Amino acid sequence: MPRTAAILIIGNEILSGRTQDTNTAWLGQQLDARGIRLNEVRVVRDEEEAIVAALNALRETHDYVFTTGGIGPTHDDITAACVAKAFGVALPVNEEARRILAEYYAMQAADLTDARLRMARIPEGAELIANPVSGAPGFKIGNVFVMAGVPAIMRGMFDGIAPNLEGGAPVLSRQVTCSLRESDVAPGLAEIQEKYPDIEIGSYPNVRGGQYGLTLVLRGQDEAALDTAAEEVGKLVQDVAQKTKRGA
Amino acid sequence: MPRTAAILIIGNEILSGRTQDTNTAWLGQQLDARGIRLNEVRVVRDEEEAIVAALNALRETHDYVFTTGGIGPTHDDITAACVAKAFGVALPVNEEARRILAEYYAMQAADLTDARLRMARIPEGAELIANPVSGAPGFKIGNVFVMAGVPAIMRGMFDGIAPNLEGGAPVLSRQVTCSLRESDVAPGLAEIQEKYPDIEIGSYPNVRGGQYGLTLVLRGQDEAALDTAAEEVGKLVQDVAQKTKRGA
Repeated sequence: MPRTAAILIIGNEILSGRTQDTNTAWLGQQLDARGIRLNEVRVVRDEEEAIVAALNALRETHDYVFTTGGIGPTHDDITAACVAKAFGVALPVNEEARRILAEYYAMQAADLTDARLRMARIPEGAELIANPVSGAPGFKIGNVFVMAGVPAIMRGMFDGIAPNLEGGAPVLSRQVTCSLRESDVAPGLAEIQEKYPDIEIGSYPNVRGGQYGLTLVLRGQDEAALDTAAEEVGKLVQDVAQKTKRGA
Repeated sequence: MPRTAAILIIGNEILSGRTQDTNTAWLGQQLDARGIRLNEVRVVRDEEEAIVAALNALRETHDYVFTTGGIGPTHDDITAACVAKAFGVALPVNEEARRILAEYYAMQAADLTDARLRMARIPEGAELIANPVSGAPGFKIGNVFVMAGVPAIMRGMFDGIAPNLEGGAPVLSRQVTCSLRESDVAPGLAEIQEKYPDIEIGSYPNVRGGQYGLTLVLRGQDEAALDTAAEEVGKLVQDVAQKTKRGA
């Protein structure tokens, strides 16, 4: 069984549509490349009850949980406090985090004010995650990785923790494109899917310039099986295209 | 209390990062404009157990649930079956849906094959949601609205159901931009937030061309209170900017 992961996105701005989330797609690709299966994403508001409940649900059912958002210096940045509450631990100022922040703000000739020191409060027992962009660290506690929401910072943090994630063979993909309707290939596709249960076959229709387009995507960890299945899908598409032409 | 909503996004392609979800941001804005509060989004795989569990959790805790994805003709389109299971009802071919599909495919000189007829299976007791783009309808059962995943189709479906949603006063927003650091304004912002508990104040930092940028967003349903609070935030930003200048 591959390792599994979930993402918990914390932030009203995603739910109001003010900010377009791009962290899910980026993390999804990164996890795939490491053979870790992203099973679920939840987006919740900046509210303690919602964050604690979602975090506790996700960390019990997945090997890894990645959170993004809510670790800045303002009143609505409550992720660290919620994680501490979910794990039932205290939230002291972490001395290493304080040192990192003091250095970061000293370089900018700015003081380590109370608002900034908030970002050094780390749940007891957590390890820091380095922030190569803007000082304030994330942290790891149990199987939960707490990261910033700003994409550039989140990516920097993930790159630092990725080497320590235990994964499996990367998930590879093949795709076959055609100009058929999804419903034309559905029966044949279902047969191929049944034959290759370890390969995930997805079907993504589009209409461009009034023309039907269809992309069939095969995904799996066994490269030889993937190539054979992709060949069968290619043959299916050719057969259906010929039949459709004869019918027209 | 405003009405609340949740979105359930069904589809492996979102979790693998192959497809960037844009339905959340669009629906979030639409719901805001209608005074309906989007509280949670979940993205799950095309797997029965995950879909049924998420749907049952969300429909009990929110006034409205919108699902997107998994209502096409292929083997991985299992949303209708999962919704029927979650509600404990049968999934017969709906005669109105069959008629709609027969007309749609007749116009294209195509047959209503078994694969296409799959899209006419609608949970017992559901009402159809018109699909102005590609024939196959969505449906509403209880407080759950089942829509397509393709953004153009989802939007067409939502536009049809929106007039029947019960909402409230639209959520309005004001924003104040400055070139301060988030931590500079955090204490003053917290004070203003405390004074206006019904207004949601968010703080969104960015770095562009090596310059700090900060957008402070206020959101609420009471326009007068919103304007007053926005003025206070504007004054805060001016005060902090002057102090920062004097300090430098």
